[in-house]
Amino acid sequence: MRLLSMPSSGNSYKVRLLLALLKRPCEIVDVEYKTEALEGARSAGRLPFGKAPVLELDDGRLLPESNAILCWLGEGTAFVPADPVLRAEMLGWMFWEQNQHEGTVAVRGALMFYPSRRVLATPERMAELLERGHAHLQIIEDRLAGGRDWLVGDAPSLADICLYGYTHTAGSRGGFDMARFPAIGRWLDRITALPGYKGLDA
Amino acid sequence: MRLLSMPSSGNSYKVRLLLALLKRPCEIVDVEYKTEALEGARSAGRLPFGKAPVLELDDGRLLPESNAILCWLGEGTAFVPADPVLRAEMLGWMFWEQNQHEGTVAVRGALMFYPSRRVLATPERMAELLERGHAHLQIIEDRLAGGRDWLVGDAPSLADICLYGYTHTAGSRGGFDMARFPAIGRWLDRITALPGYKGLDA
Repeated sequence: MRLLSMPSSGNSYKVRLLLALLKRPCEIVDVEYKTEALEGARSAGRLPFGKAPVLELDDGRLLPESNAILCWLGEGTAFVPADPVLRAEMLGWMFWEQNQHEGTVAVRGALMFYPSRRVLATPERMAELLERGHAHLQIIEDRLAGGRDWLVGDAPSLADICLYGYTHTAGSRGGFDMARFPAIGRWLDRITALPGYKGLDA
Repeated sequence: MRLLSMPSSGNSYKVRLLLALLKRPCEIVDVEYKTEALEGARSAGRLPFGKAPVLELDDGRLLPESNAILCWLGEGTAFVPADPVLRAEMLGWMFWEQNQHEGTVAVRGALMFYPSRRVLATPERMAELLERGHAHLQIIEDRLAGGRDWLVGDAPSLADICLYGYTHTAGSRGGFDMARFPAIGRWLDRITALPGYKGLDA
């Protein structure tokens, strides 16, 4: 099993984090943004949707999409609830992450982080992403406020791993005002305290 | 079981289509875009992420996100492959749909379809969405070309239902040039021929 992983990307990091929490060995192949390694993997047809991460199975089959890889790795572990309704709730958070949260929280972070993208970071666009991203973060805050420890059920699930990916750098990379979201802060701390936890740069 | 469904939306339609194919009875509550019904559901807290569709279970629990609802309804049916790798591939297409395809194919359609959004349809934005949407449609075309009948495995799965939602109106609503994509055309026909099929306006 081999992971084509972009070191700087939250989508790739989610998968590395789950592998670490599950203590599953996996070869990691770095395909950083704007490098020959990434272009080589793309032109060799190893990135079915043109982007990382991709999990290469031992029989050569390629699994793209970070959240689908989380589902594949998480199947049968404590990170996927047994109850079908909780499982559907977990998937709901994961689809929302790709459809809404990533398009503001991750995109604003990328516009500030990658030098080649800074030209796209117009003041209007950054202001709009800030406002919409704060609204998305508020949805997570509202879910966690009032004593809930995890997004779904009463244990960490793939939904938490998934949303942690870009939320934990929303302040440092994306310039979001995380002081507004104390319940998110405590939830981030709970994730870093999980046995086997590994940071983005670890 | 009750579905809060936006009649004009591909995301809501996907769920109505799967219900029809599965012959599962479900009360449909219309919450059309820019109507009091939608605002009422939102302010009553019945739309966890602020948008439709939402499936309301008989015990009152709310399941948001079209693709998570498809997974909940599809569990244990022929629309979810038994093989775990095929299941992960299916989810990969569904996450890609929410992360990439919807942001071009559905968004361009919405900008042309909903009068209140037309002000946002600047020539630059429409040209960019056309180009990126064609690239996304080409990924589906490449997957289906060469004799593959369905996106995953050899039977219709949730991936096909999911991508059908916005792809089948990409030409009529979004102005995409579907003549470029003959394999998509044949795949759309195969879906309309499934027993129990129901159109967007049915």
